[in-house]
This record gives sequence, C-alpha cells and structure tokens, in this order.
Amino acid sequence: MSSQPPHSTLLIPGPIEFDDAVLQSMSHYSESHVAPGFVSTFGDTLSMLRKLFQTTDPASQPFVISGSGTLGWDMVAANLVEPGEDVLVLTTGYFGDSFADCLKVYGANVTQLKGPIGSKPQLPEIEQALKEKKYKMVTVTHVDTSTGVLSTLPGLSELIQKVSPETLLVVDGVCSVAGEEIDFDNWKLDGVITASQKAIGCPAGLSISMFSGRAMKKFETRKAPVGSYFASMKNWTPIMKNYEAKKPSYFATPSPQLVHALNTALKQILAAGPLSERFAKHAEVSDKIKKAITALGLKQVASDPAEQSHCMTAIYLPETVKATDLLPALAKKEVIFAGGIHKEIGPKYIRFGHMGVSVTDPKRSDIDKAIKALEAGLTECGYQKA
Amino acid sequence: MSSQPPHSTLLIPGPIEFDDAVLQSMSHYSESHVAPGFVSTFGDTLSMLRKLFQTTDPASQPFVISGSGTLGWDMVAANLVEPGEDVLVLTTGYFGDSFADCLKVYGANVTQLKGPIGSKPQLPEIEQALKEKKYKMVTVTHVDTSTGVLSTLPGLSELIQKVSPETLLVVDGVCSVAGEEIDFDNWKLDGVITASQKAIGCPAGLSISMFSGRAMKKFETRKAPVGSYFASMKNWTPIMKNYEAKKPSYFATPSPQLVHALNTALKQILAAGPLSERFAKHAEVSDKIKKAITALGLKQVASDPAEQSHCMTAIYLPETVKATDLLPALAKKEVIFAGGIHKEIGPKYIRFGHMGVSVTDPKRSDIDKAIKALEAGLTECGYQKA
Repeated sequence: MSSQPPHSTLLIPGPIEFDDAVLQSMSHYSESHVAPGFVSTFGDTLSMLRKLFQTTDPASQPFVISGSGTLGWDMVAANLVEPGEDVLVLTTGYFGDSFADCLKVYGANVTQLKGPIGSKPQLPEIEQALKEKKYKMVTVTHVDTSTGVLSTLPGLSELIQKVSPETLLVVDGVCSVAGEEIDFDNWKLDGVITASQKAIGCPAGLSISMFSGRAMKKFETRKAPVGSYFASMKNWTPIMKNYEAKKPSYFATPSPQLVHALNTALKQILAAGPLSERFAKHAEVSDKIKKAITALGLKQVASDPAEQSHCMTAIYLPETVKATDLLPALAKKEVIFAGGIHKEIGPKYIRFGHMGVSVTDPKRSDIDKAIKALEAGLTECGYQKA
Repeated sequence: MSSQPPHSTLLIPGPIEFDDAVLQSMSHYSESHVAPGFVSTFGDTLSMLRKLFQTTDPASQPFVISGSGTLGWDMVAANLVEPGEDVLVLTTGYFGDSFADCLKVYGANVTQLKGPIGSKPQLPEIEQALKEKKYKMVTVTHVDTSTGVLSTLPGLSELIQKVSPETLLVVDGVCSVAGEEIDFDNWKLDGVITASQKAIGCPAGLSISMFSGRAMKKFETRKAPVGSYFASMKNWTPIMKNYEAKKPSYFATPSPQLVHALNTALKQILAAGPLSERFAKHAEVSDKIKKAITALGLKQVASDPAEQSHCMTAIYLPETVKATDLLPALAKKEVIFAGGIHKEIGPKYIRFGHMGVSVTDPKRSDIDKAIKALEAGLTECGYQKA
C-alpha cells in the first residue's frame, strides 16, 4: 500500500507521480553538505547519471544543481557559446523558442529553424542551414513539452558529423531523459540538459545535465568570460568532480534532500533492468494511449507517428469541447491533465503526460484510469465520435 | 517524539536541524505547479515572507526560486545593476568577496571596502567612499557565514540616506534572515536575499528574496538588457505576482515539495509569537554560547561583541588543537560543527551555527549538548585552559 494519502493522479508532462520511496527520501534528516555520508550519496548520484545517459567516456561531465530545467539553458548559453557566435536552434514548440530567447540573453547570434506546428525541421533544410553558415552549436528539443513532437537524434547527429563536424550538438532533454532512449556516446551528443520532475521521477528543484569531453574542452578554451555566476561551469565543474571522487567541496549549498530523492529514483531506474526495457515500456504504453485517442476520433498535435513522443501526448480537442470544461471534468474523476501552452494553438488542445511510475509500476493503473476518464469526460462535455 | 531517525545534531551555519513537520512537508504527494491547491500554497508563502521581512509596503516584491542563496547574488547583479555602474561592496569575509565576484561577472564596476579579519568597514570610511563616487548600489553581508561578523544595518542605512539617498542598499541575509532582526521598510532596505536552509529552517534548494518598490522601479527602467535568463526579474516578477494573487502562471517549474516545506516553516515562525521574541531568543542563546566559549578561554573571530552574529559563532582554536582533530572528536559525540572557510585563516577556527529549532524549540537540548561536547572534545585534544 502506498504511504501517500489519496490524491488525484497527476498525468501532466511533469511533475509526474512519484514513488513512495523517492518521496520518503525527500524527508531525510538534515546533513552537512560536506559530510562524508552526503558526499558519498551525491557522488554515487553523479556516477549513476553516467549510466542513465549511457556514457562511459570518463571525459563526460555530469552536473546536478539546485534549479529547474530552465537553468540548463543558462548553463549552455553562458558557458558553451561566446557572444557573437552562431547557434542554430531547431524548434518544435514553445520550449525551442524559449531556449532561443535564453541563448540571445548571453549574446549568441541565433538562427531558428521551425517546423510547422506539430512537426519539426527536416534534415534537408537543416543540412542547407549548416552549409550556409558555420555554427558553434546546434540545439534541439528532444521532446517539446508544448507539442509532444519528438526529434529523433541519431540522424541529426550523423548529418552534423558529415556536414559540420566541429559544431556542438546540445539536446534539451527535459521531457525525454529516462523516457526516450538517449545514447550519449554513440550518438555523439555534446550536451543534454534535463530536470528532475519528469521521467526521472524525482520532485522538481534540480537541473541535471551531461556534457561531452569535447564540450568541456571548448568551454575551457573559451576566450570571453563566462556570462553567469550561479550557472558557471567554472564554478561548478571542480565541485562535481570532487563530489564524484567523494571529496567534500563547496561553491553553493546543494539540497541534500533533493539529491537523496534523485539518488533513490536513479537506483530504482537502474535496478529495474536494462534501460532498453524501460524505453520499450514507455513506447508500448505510449502506443496504447495513442491508439485509444485515435479510437476516440481525436487527432494529435504531433501528426506524424514517427515524430510522436513516447513520454506525453498533445491531443487536439473536438471543436465543440473546451479545455476549460474538459480539464475540470477530468479533475472530478481525479485525473489531472495539462492545458495547451503553445502560443498559437493554446486553447485548442490538452496534454497527457505518461512517464515514470505511472508507466512502469505494474501495481498502478494510472493510465487505464486516465483513458477511461478522458472518454467519460468527453461524453459529459457533449462530444460524440463522428 | 521526533519522527526523524536518531542522527548527529547538525550545528553548522546551515543547513540547520529541521522540524519534523517541515521535513514531512518535503514528502508531499505530487501536485501540478499550476493547480489551485499548490497555487494557493505558493501565494500564501509569498505573503508570509512579507511578514517575516516586516514589510507592509505593497510595492515590495518577494521572490522564491529554485536555487540556493548564491542565486540571489545573480538576481541582484543581473537585474539591479547595469554594466559599468558602480557598486560599493562592504566585505566582512569570504561571502562578501564572492558577492563582489558575482557582481563583476555581470559588468558592475566594484569597489570593495574590507574590514580587518573579524571586523567590518566602519561608518566613517563608508561615508568617505560614498562622497568620492556616486554608487548605484551598496551591498552588505548582514552576517558573513565565514566569520560570524554582524553588520548592523540601521546606522548604515541612515548614512546612505544622508550622503547618497539615490543609492540602493542591498543586504546578503543568507545567514541572518529569521535569526537577526530585519525591519525592511523602516530600515529603508532595497533588497534582502537569503536561502531556505538557514534560520528559516527549510531544507536547501530555494533562493528567497525581497526587493523594495524603489528597487523594482529601478529594474523596470533599466536601459541595458537583463544579464540572465533564469535569474531574470523580467521573467519571474509576473509569475510571483500571479502566484500571490492565486492565479496560475508559468515561467520555469517551481518545486512544490520545497515550497510546501517553506510554507510550513514560515507558518511555524509566524505562529510562535511576535518576531521580536524570536530574535530575542536567538540573541539570548547566542550570548550563552559566547559566554561559554569565553569561559573555555577561547576567542571569537568576530572580536567586538557589537559585531558578533546571533546566528553563529566562529571560534579560534587554541594553538595546540587542530580542527582536523577536534571536528571528528565532536562528531563522535554526535555534534557536527563546520571548519573554517576564510581564505586567510581557514584552518585556525571552527564554526558553530545556532539558528532555528535548535534555538527556539524548548524540547531540544542541542545547544547544551554542543557546549558540553566542545568542552570534552577540547580536553580530548589535549587542551587545558590557561
């Protein structure tokens, strides 16, 4: 039996439902951030992140910093790009636009390639862009939380290797890490930034990232000063290296409770079996959800099945149903979905997050409950399948 | 009886020991960051901060952002100062130096006034500095966690009002808020930044700050673009205003669990009686500790009693005793103190934090246990009072 009190099932694309043991780790008694016990916990957490990102290159550098997924953009923008350098931002929704805004704050010269709503920039146009200008970096949103569009990474990486091998490839994996496959070394990624509260399954409050040895070297040899203090890799890299070597170290106080919870979440993920099984499970459940949505006569924002995330589904509402009616109807059935946040189509769709324990824990029936609630809620809102 | 397992008593200058109910709030089940329940909790938390900082001016603006105390420096540096503007940094230890470093990252032209180790810049030299140059801002570390030096604020504020009334006064209150008196409106403060894990008594992971209407106006009329994305007041101000008005709003995902814990901690502080009693209790316990330390024949880093913090005590070790021997001896007695971190005198002293429940909860005997442990530990290390 769960140690959590009865509550509505949270199926937004983050924060997600959390496992009991993870939540209990949040209540860990107070410890010094430089005491051996906590230093060891933090060090193990960083090492486990290497496994989650599937990187065995010792030059790869993980970071865990108090903040949110957004802070990862500042880390990329303030450390890996120098003012005036060109960055190509591949945009599939709200979060690609915001990443571009962040890069501009730190002086990057940003070119955006945007797919039509619900789709992504395609490889031929990316190839053309890469041939027109020498980019320091390409950024891509692996899953844009506003649209559920999945940008597959291996083809993009191969293209960059072929056309512009010096260019860094940085992935916004906020809504993908631990739900979609990420093969950091083999896909030659230079950076993946994420947050704790999505598929990793730890409460919000941590910015989590991994950077390649190549990215770290580019950082170390940058000429312009770093554009941030709190998000400075210069300040944080020695701290992360020390924690992982189990040596106490200080730049700014980490959150022992959140790091304990992340440690518990990562242990659970890695103990459950090969990561490939975890990704396959997310795909299997996602397929089932998408099939149910199609059976209801509804369309997805991400129209091409090859571009649909396995962590969430953005669902267009029938023309006769308003999100402001349907979401409260679902809430009465104790299922919480999210509204749309895309600037152009916000009120026309809703979002269903399916990550972490709601997908992987066989004792939970969250997904079936949500599909049934959606069906009943639509009917209550007067919708009849054509 | 405590719901926490037996553990060593943490008496470093933050993180501190936490109350059971605060730790239990950390395990709150998952909620949407834009759902009415959590929005209300966050809004109440912001309103309670106004009471803690003793500000009734509706133009004052509180912020609670995932991060650490250090992030508050970035907020000040990136939003309230424009590149090339002059800032006078009053330094009483490690943290004043670091605040200066942060200001420089965002382009401030920093002048530092440093007191001798264990003391602070005095009003006459500050007056002279203010007359020599027009400063956009003066920053002061209320209690420098590296030395335990207290910078009293009313006299400083009056001086600035007299000599340079346009100058903003911003306080680093990381190791003072909720332990030392801060009378935001009456002392005409323009900004106070702090962290959750010190005298407020909530686990680490939150940057907490309050800015005056005057500071917010200077921010709104700045000419240069804001130097940060994650720490941008432009991005966060509407979010904080909306939460406090109980309206959902999104810039970056907050940590519902940490905000619940902060809510619980603030409720406890405000329900316990007038804040003046809380500050008096911290002063009373601090006096007792300082008396015991003097009785042991030991000196404090902060030599002048008028410049000694009531939240912590930095204690010079006897010449024959090493911190690397004494701290483990204390740990064996289940009392955790911190080592020194001042660049010039680091190994020569230790730090004893006395804030929050260890001071205010009559059911706890943390302070007496620590004083006894210190006495016995020193004897074990071969120290005999002269």
